[in-house]
Amino acid sequence: MLKEGQKLAIDWLPDKNSKEPVYKQIVNYINRKISSGDWTIGSKLPSQRFLAECFSVNRSTVVRALEELCSYGILEGTTGKGTMVTSNTWSVLMSNAPPDWGDYLRAGTFQENVPTVQMINKLEFEKDIVRLGTGELSPDLFPAEMMREVLQKLPDRFPSLNYLGPLGLPELRRALSLRLKKQGIDADPSCILITSGSLQALQLISVCMLKPGSVVYTESPSYLKSLQVFPSAGMKLTGIPMDRDGIQYWDIGNQTENSRNEAAVDMEDALLYTIPTFHNPTGTLMSETRRKELFRFCSNHRLPIIEDDAYGELWLEEEPPKPLKTMDHHGMILYLGTISKTLAPGLRIGWLVGPESVVERLGDVKMQIDYGASSLSQWALAELFSSGLYDKYLIDLRHKLKLRRDFALSLLEKHFRGLAQWDVPKGSFYIWLKLLVDIPTDQLFQRMLKEQILINPGNIYDFQKNKSIRLSYSYAEEVSLENGIEKMADVIRKMR
Amino acid sequence: MLKEGQKLAIDWLPDKNSKEPVYKQIVNYINRKISSGDWTIGSKLPSQRFLAECFSVNRSTVVRALEELCSYGILEGTTGKGTMVTSNTWSVLMSNAPPDWGDYLRAGTFQENVPTVQMINKLEFEKDIVRLGTGELSPDLFPAEMMREVLQKLPDRFPSLNYLGPLGLPELRRALSLRLKKQGIDADPSCILITSGSLQALQLISVCMLKPGSVVYTESPSYLKSLQVFPSAGMKLTGIPMDRDGIQYWDIGNQTENSRNEAAVDMEDALLYTIPTFHNPTGTLMSETRRKELFRFCSNHRLPIIEDDAYGELWLEEEPPKPLKTMDHHGMILYLGTISKTLAPGLRIGWLVGPESVVERLGDVKMQIDYGASSLSQWALAELFSSGLYDKYLIDLRHKLKLRRDFALSLLEKHFRGLAQWDVPKGSFYIWLKLLVDIPTDQLFQRMLKEQILINPGNIYDFQKNKSIRLSYSYAEEVSLENGIEKMADVIRKMR
Repeated sequence: MLKEGQKLAIDWLPDKNSKEPVYKQIVNYINRKISSGDWTIGSKLPSQRFLAECFSVNRSTVVRALEELCSYGILEGTTGKGTMVTSNTWSVLMSNAPPDWGDYLRAGTFQENVPTVQMINKLEFEKDIVRLGTGELSPDLFPAEMMREVLQKLPDRFPSLNYLGPLGLPELRRALSLRLKKQGIDADPSCILITSGSLQALQLISVCMLKPGSVVYTESPSYLKSLQVFPSAGMKLTGIPMDRDGIQYWDIGNQTENSRNEAAVDMEDALLYTIPTFHNPTGTLMSETRRKELFRFCSNHRLPIIEDDAYGELWLEEEPPKPLKTMDHHGMILYLGTISKTLAPGLRIGWLVGPESVVERLGDVKMQIDYGASSLSQWALAELFSSGLYDKYLIDLRHKLKLRRDFALSLLEKHFRGLAQWDVPKGSFYIWLKLLVDIPTDQLFQRMLKEQILINPGNIYDFQKNKSIRLSYSYAEEVSLENGIEKMADVIRKMR
Repeated sequence: MLKEGQKLAIDWLPDKNSKEPVYKQIVNYINRKISSGDWTIGSKLPSQRFLAECFSVNRSTVVRALEELCSYGILEGTTGKGTMVTSNTWSVLMSNAPPDWGDYLRAGTFQENVPTVQMINKLEFEKDIVRLGTGELSPDLFPAEMMREVLQKLPDRFPSLNYLGPLGLPELRRALSLRLKKQGIDADPSCILITSGSLQALQLISVCMLKPGSVVYTESPSYLKSLQVFPSAGMKLTGIPMDRDGIQYWDIGNQTENSRNEAAVDMEDALLYTIPTFHNPTGTLMSETRRKELFRFCSNHRLPIIEDDAYGELWLEEEPPKPLKTMDHHGMILYLGTISKTLAPGLRIGWLVGPESVVERLGDVKMQIDYGASSLSQWALAELFSSGLYDKYLIDLRHKLKLRRDFALSLLEKHFRGLAQWDVPKGSFYIWLKLLVDIPTDQLFQRMLKEQILINPGNIYDFQKNKSIRLSYSYAEEVSLENGIEKMADVIRKMR
């Protein structure tokens, strides 16, 4: 291993006959050297002139490669001091070895709450059951006319429905790139990977980029806790408390204080999964200040972030603060988007935005799993975005969701005063009902089930016992919501 | 462990308050007992009357449960002799433990040919390259008008595009059930699982039903050899030679002669993957006699079968013999279908037909992977099938494919006489060109690439060196096919 300042050995030449651009080969070569540990953090690169000679290329080719590596945060150039290896974020987490599915999906020890999640997943497809916690839009809110318009135009758009390349439909990635730009996220289409929903994005990250034993920090409670995707791959979920401004990031520091002195590796093998905007299940909107502080904290500790922005477009009164990703100029954040919450989970389309090298790697593995997401879904979405129909639909949807929220709040005022506390959500689907009475929510779940009413108890989202209920105003019909909330209040009173 | 004839212990009662029908709970209970090894093959079940008492249910409920288990081949009833545990096929292969993704996708040792497959996968998405081996329909053959008609009707069909249950869209499964019935396959919709393409079906089987070290027999050569799905999960692919009637199944017997005497487990941990109809890559159509013999052989040896019928509908002159699945009354065969070859791989829809218990298990795991396939794709396909449009389209497609095949054959007559041998394919896309000259096909691949022509050398499909080329007449345009074949003959002559 090389020490700081020591000269790095170059034992490789680009293949000028390859289809791959020479500068890209150099990027990959340096990335490999750093990933493998041959070139350690802190080591200094030779001069551009020297590198150009070694690789037998023009200096401009070297400059282009180094610029790309700097943009990933892998290298850092300081005038007069040369270029140094600096990164231990994604590109270094990311191994070039074949992915290790390890003990994937073989959850070592199933958590107590998992049977509840399984039961919810199963019962959601039964008829005649009222769903008070479902994180989906009601079929009433489905924009049938807009979809008709889109589907009619599609046959003029696609020449066929053949296989697509590993990153997904170029037209969709271009449309997303434009949308993201409006939000302040600068993402080239080559930095966007289309996934079969966000769950698949998490699956790809867990399998390709994290080692078993890695720590995934997340809000406590968190939707992530109800999924098996990280624990099944051998990762340890660690809950960090929240306040009304979002995750209390300083507790990450406290929890790792001991390990931080041991080796940088401990922070290299950790990451943060966060839903800053309309957090699931609490509905919390992370404040702008907290966002800045959190990003600074993670930058300082080189803690990579998965930012899940499934709900960001579902604000009800005013636009939320910009995503964390807008602050990220060094590829520290993998940003996840999806159409599942705003329009239709059945399309099975999500997207992941990150450094090109990460996106390419995940795309290659995706091809080994399912050869890509439905191209029909992708074309429909590309048309929706580029036609402007989607933005019009969102305006209408926000209005309808706000009516639903206000109706739910009025029902809570009527039936839950004294029984629970809640905040008024500024967007998305959920009201987090914190029960004031001491009853076991698992029993409440069972009692409600006998009434043909399905609720989502907070236990399935939390790292400790939780006495809250995730109430959703997006799914159930008005009358069901009314009867359901009244019934729940009755049952709770009886249980008290 | 119990010996034959020994009484089985019943230590369980069905939950009459459960949503699951009581008979089904009994099916699952007995299945678990057999899977776990508590009830061994050969053990005799107590009388129906006794079972009814133990389970505290009506005798008719017991009869229904036993009938279902008999239909899977797990139990066998003989008049006067009672009911015995007999199965070692799917239901026993299938573990109820969480799936073991083992070393999934971490191919232990990459075969020499894999870089060629990777290169083909990559180059297929480049413009200006002529693809002489691609197993897809040309965009020219895409039925744009039919798709327009289907997409226009869809908005009247679906109330929303929300999540679907684990097995996929009921409407699509019902339509498939009807189609399969016409082919002679009796499959209830509850025995059909919609997958995100056939690759995912193979992935689910490899992960949920096979142990690392299991043997997967297949034709030699086989398309399966070009995939990493089984080797990556630790399974051993073993090639069995073919003749013009199909796989020489008797060689399976020869290869396992030694192990068969050791323990039945060796055959329990093996299965056969076969493409009997228009085999990929050779185009071979398995004769009716061979099908019967193969099925008898596998039944006798209790060797489960994956029957891949991706190409069965693409016959050019006359209908092929019925699928193996039509002979299967004991759940020995998992039958795979797909829309990828006949219409559009971009829809990413395949289906798996098998015993209900197997289908349910695979469906549950599918939900943990991607929450199901695109519902838009599924609705489009359901409409296509039930409207009759698809069958009309197939008639036209067969006609066009036949013209393409005959054109390709005429080009081969002109340019490849003396250079290669080939059979006339009776369906599907491929002509298997067996070169008569001794040249390394990997070099031919490289030389053709310099001419911007992509070919699929036989090596990527075979278990030993192979001097053939998979030529496809389904993809390249007429003029490209003509120039490509002529160029390939030139190059071969020069290499000779």
